Amino acid sequence: MRTGIATVCLSGTLKEKMQACAIAGFDGIEIFEQDLVTSSLSPEDVRKMAADLGLTLDLYQPFRDFDSVPEDLLAANLRRAEAKFKLMSRLGMDTILVCSNVGTATVDDDSLRAEQLSRLAGLAGDHGIKVAYEALAWGKYVNDYEHAHRLVETVDHPNLGTCLDSFHILSRDWDTAPIESFNADKIFFVQVADAPKLSMDVLSWSRHYRVFPGEGQFELAKFMGYVVRAGYAGPVSLEVFNDVFRQSDVERTAVDAMRSLIWLEEQSAKWLDANAPAGAGGVGTVVSGPAAPARRRYPMELATLPQVAEPAGFNFAEVKAADTAGLEKLLGQLGFEFNGRHRTKDVQLWTMGHARVIINEQDPAGPDAAALAGVPAGSAPAIAALGFDVDSPVIAAARAQQLKAPAVPRKSQANEEVFQGFAAPDSTEIFLCQGSPDGTAAWTHEFGAGLEVPAGARSAVIDHVNLAQPWQHFDEAVLFYTSALALEPQPFAEVPSPSGLVRSQVMLTADRAVRLVLNLAPVIQQDGADTGTAHRTTYQEHIAFAVDDLVATAREARDRGLDFLQIPANYYEDLDARFALDPAFLATLRELNLLYDRDADGEFLHFYTATVGSVFFEMVERRGGYDGYGAPNAPVRHAVQYDHLHQLKRAT
Amino acid sequence: MRTGIATVCLSGTLKEKMQACAIAGFDGIEIFEQDLVTSSLSPEDVRKMAADLGLTLDLYQPFRDFDSVPEDLLAANLRRAEAKFKLMSRLGMDTILVCSNVGTATVDDDSLRAEQLSRLAGLAGDHGIKVAYEALAWGKYVNDYEHAHRLVETVDHPNLGTCLDSFHILSRDWDTAPIESFNADKIFFVQVADAPKLSMDVLSWSRHYRVFPGEGQFELAKFMGYVVRAGYAGPVSLEVFNDVFRQSDVERTAVDAMRSLIWLEEQSAKWLDANAPAGAGGVGTVVSGPAAPARRRYPMELATLPQVAEPAGFNFAEVKAADTAGLEKLLGQLGFEFNGRHRTKDVQLWTMGHARVIINEQDPAGPDAAALAGVPAGSAPAIAALGFDVDSPVIAAARAQQLKAPAVPRKSQANEEVFQGFAAPDSTEIFLCQGSPDGTAAWTHEFGAGLEVPAGARSAVIDHVNLAQPWQHFDEAVLFYTSALALEPQPFAEVPSPSGLVRSQVMLTADRAVRLVLNLAPVIQQDGADTGTAHRTTYQEHIAFAVDDLVATAREARDRGLDFLQIPANYYEDLDARFALDPAFLATLRELNLLYDRDADGEFLHFYTATVGSVFFEMVERRGGYDGYGAPNAPVRHAVQYDHLHQLKRAT
Repeated sequence: MRTGIATVCLSGTLKEKMQACAIAGFDGIEIFEQDLVTSSLSPEDVRKMAADLGLTLDLYQPFRDFDSVPEDLLAANLRRAEAKFKLMSRLGMDTILVCSNVGTATVDDDSLRAEQLSRLAGLAGDHGIKVAYEALAWGKYVNDYEHAHRLVETVDHPNLGTCLDSFHILSRDWDTAPIESFNADKIFFVQVADAPKLSMDVLSWSRHYRVFPGEGQFELAKFMGYVVRAGYAGPVSLEVFNDVFRQSDVERTAVDAMRSLIWLEEQSAKWLDANAPAGAGGVGTVVSGPAAPARRRYPMELATLPQVAEPAGFNFAEVKAADTAGLEKLLGQLGFEFNGRHRTKDVQLWTMGHARVIINEQDPAGPDAAALAGVPAGSAPAIAALGFDVDSPVIAAARAQQLKAPAVPRKSQANEEVFQGFAAPDSTEIFLCQGSPDGTAAWTHEFGAGLEVPAGARSAVIDHVNLAQPWQHFDEAVLFYTSALALEPQPFAEVPSPSGLVRSQVMLTADRAVRLVLNLAPVIQQDGADTGTAHRTTYQEHIAFAVDDLVATAREARDRGLDFLQIPANYYEDLDARFALDPAFLATLRELNLLYDRDADGEFLHFYTATVGSVFFEMVERRGGYDGYGAPNAPVRHAVQYDHLHQLKRAT
Repeated sequence: MRTGIATVCLSGTLKEKMQACAIAGFDGIEIFEQDLVTSSLSPEDVRKMAADLGLTLDLYQPFRDFDSVPEDLLAANLRRAEAKFKLMSRLGMDTILVCSNVGTATVDDDSLRAEQLSRLAGLAGDHGIKVAYEALAWGKYVNDYEHAHRLVETVDHPNLGTCLDSFHILSRDWDTAPIESFNADKIFFVQVADAPKLSMDVLSWSRHYRVFPGEGQFELAKFMGYVVRAGYAGPVSLEVFNDVFRQSDVERTAVDAMRSLIWLEEQSAKWLDANAPAGAGGVGTVVSGPAAPARRRYPMELATLPQVAEPAGFNFAEVKAADTAGLEKLLGQLGFEFNGRHRTKDVQLWTMGHARVIINEQDPAGPDAAALAGVPAGSAPAIAALGFDVDSPVIAAARAQQLKAPAVPRKSQANEEVFQGFAAPDSTEIFLCQGSPDGTAAWTHEFGAGLEVPAGARSAVIDHVNLAQPWQHFDEAVLFYTSALALEPQPFAEVPSPSGLVRSQVMLTADRAVRLVLNLAPVIQQDGADTGTAHRTTYQEHIAFAVDDLVATAREARDRGLDFLQIPANYYEDLDARFALDPAFLATLRELNLLYDRDADGEFLHFYTATVGSVFFEMVERRGGYDGYGAPNAPVRHAVQYDHLHQLKRAT
């Protein structure tokens, strides 16, 4: 699949955008007109730079408001088009995007439109240019891709084809199946964009909220499947207008964009395999590597990635801190056993059954980063790494690498078993571990004997991990965990907190063995001081452990002196008003600072510890089929934590 | 008018919210349930604190999903309600908001609904509680305020009334006139919120985009006019869900909120005056101060503010800089005359006809602020103050003061005439000057003789000033200039720049003598460094001067060696493609780095200077009735300025 991206997706100057696209590995780009008009590079400079960078210049765009106009305006439009055709010759470009008219269309007549498009195609032919006509979702008379295609068929000129843009098609809920029967020679270009399903006017939705494939909710693999079946083999190019991407680091966004196309290519191949036409004599598409002879071939070749199953569970969670006393105390009080120090590294292992926590005795972000974040170096423990059990760490790592996940240096590993690791968008290190059928981990033997595990010690597993995401990398993180780790994004929720709404995105495996919660915390804004950079200090992250008997676990922790997050009395009154709980049970909840939720499937009990640095812990018990995270209780946690943080600030 | 605000509008803990409301001068508050549930304050603590702060507790809210349910669910709902009634007794509160059912309604039957509301009212009566029933815009069966009112009339219970919420009424475009004929005794509460006109699902619109009155596009004065005419005299309370307000400084947001009610009160009185019923024997409403005997009285008393006309023009613009050399050079090259230094202060006056620029020889933000912003102290000139010609500076200042505009210390004044001054939300200082019929300013005599103004020197006026706004104070700024300075907000535009979309909001006077452009610049985000705090260093501001002959002005400036903003050649090719300009004219534009725009009303020529610190200048010529700002050219300016800034960064 030939990959492309429109320069409008990215921040920076045209030169910066082109360089970033080349570094990210795109085959070609679309030149967004404004990026050229505002550039100090001449068309010849751009042509040479693209050649030097190994980028093809696939599409000049957009040319607006051409068709469905009176004759005098058409003459002006043809004159305007010819100027652009000449410019494209200097750029060495051969395809221009012409959008259906939005602003100046006054004549709704398909035969007139066809005649006008025919004249444009003729003029384009004189300059060796191909016109890709696209139906905008909000086009005045032409807003349906089949309508645009009919016009192209009617004109039947070699220099007129259509451009299919997934946003304009899927935002209107048009059926994509008819694409399959399009004449491939008349599909001049394909643009892809994903989007969250929003109920708003389609123009605003399009201009601000498009995202890269895999970051939204459109059925893009299906769309691409029909495009491939039609026989199209040209570029598949991203055209994504997004307010955040436009102000983010250009090189990073380009990598995110490229990852989305690699993922889409794989998903499209899978869709084709799963939806092979009956009687086709075989399934699917051509894959890289030796193709099975029975397979149907399509002109577009789709590469696939190393295949991984979803992870079987968390192998460990790692917290970094220079001063580990607070963490050790909390874990001990929760009932974790100290399993000793690593043979060669400055790390400790704490376990409670199969729940494994590594304490890495390092400054979480290095002294410089800590100083920038306004916290004393080494004082703030933070979640640094997560280990996942996978079938084959090597294959999973190869997949992540092909998805452009940055590898993390070996020295970050907390043990001597060779872990494959890469960095997530928020810089959390992700390690791929060999799972074992009994849930144990071989690497634990690298740690000293530690304390004896007392008979009857409680067992726990990691239930979920909650990571804060910087706002500018939230969508990137969703795609990252979807593509590299085979987690499935759930519909997001918004939780009120005293410092604003927290967007909460659950990513999980089908069997719920892995639950990862990505939280987009508000940038706290007070008295002009923007503390958004230090997201780990303004928003707390946590690891939640599931146990069988939360009440008993909480009692034992209390007896060991655990510093629970103190739940306000008002909460229990409201809980009683909502659920009419048994008074004795309510008294127990209140006594132990437990929180409670219930839904049609079951019940949820949980409690939180106080926070050390930016980390706290949660203990949960799931009863019945309860599948949530106690979301109705999240505002209580946020409010109490906010209050503590502000009391600390006032005290210092 | 009794003023109120729901705690959900603000950030922070319940205690912080209550304190901020008291400081801002609200009469009372609505307690948003979650703020109480998550608070460590007991109901008795809240009651005492409110009394100590002089705040009434006007409404407990919301109680959801009560009506239109089967009997078993109703029993549970009544139990839930009784728990809340008991809680309200402890709080000393007497009114609860009950929203029409969204989630659990299954029975669409008005007689059943009336019976259920009647039972709720009876129970409420037993506890001395009044139920204010409100139709949510997205209520399952009840989503129209007249429907809710009919149910209240049907039940006819002294403890059941309605709550009118402007958002739920105006977001659905319901006619507000019927409110006038409502029985005032059945209107238990009035909530107000404004909103921008967005085309999206009403729930998302409501939960994220409400703004304070005067910051959106709803006809709130008319809504309030009917409420007043109905005879309602209870609290008028803000219920505004806004993502930005929820993460902004609580005290500052409370002041913004209070300002919006003061303004709404005045606008409502004006609406009543302008829409007095025929044959009423007089107009309007009771105003504070001695009321004209012929005026119709309403139970709600509406205070008015000192009245001001829109400003007649800019009196001056002031730029601060420790190193003024760059500014002096630019102004001189543009054709400004140096009029000398002030008799007693370290300021210079530069003029070009009636365009007056003061250069204040001070570090624009003080060494500390400069260091925080990451710029060398004193190196960055910035726009510091604007003077406006008004009829009566004293009255205008009194109005601003009543609108809670913070006065600025006298020492900031640049001359010896006593100026009334206050600080705008972005901390620009606004001075109110006595306008003169001939456009001169008396205070200029405080400056030394300066240079002789040569015969035939060009004349100019300040055409517009473009100020960057921090994102968290943008809505506040719109209300501020609307209410305190009588400027009219225009529909906003969005302009692409290499670092993201720039939201541009024009505020102006009807005669266009004052044009102020508020720009919300994106937070530039690169490689993890959030530089959003130092908005003045990341986004450039400017002062634009209008002249009669731009081409001649530009030639003279070029001859004096002016450093023009260099416009790319590609721009002129595109301009020609769009407008088919006379080749000689196009050559002139190109030669002088002029930009051009044209619309149905006229033409616009302009050029920009290079930037010193965060300030640059623009020269414009308006031909015919052109009323814009060359918006199609703004992306060119942004791109070139971005490129320069990045070249500077790379060089240092």
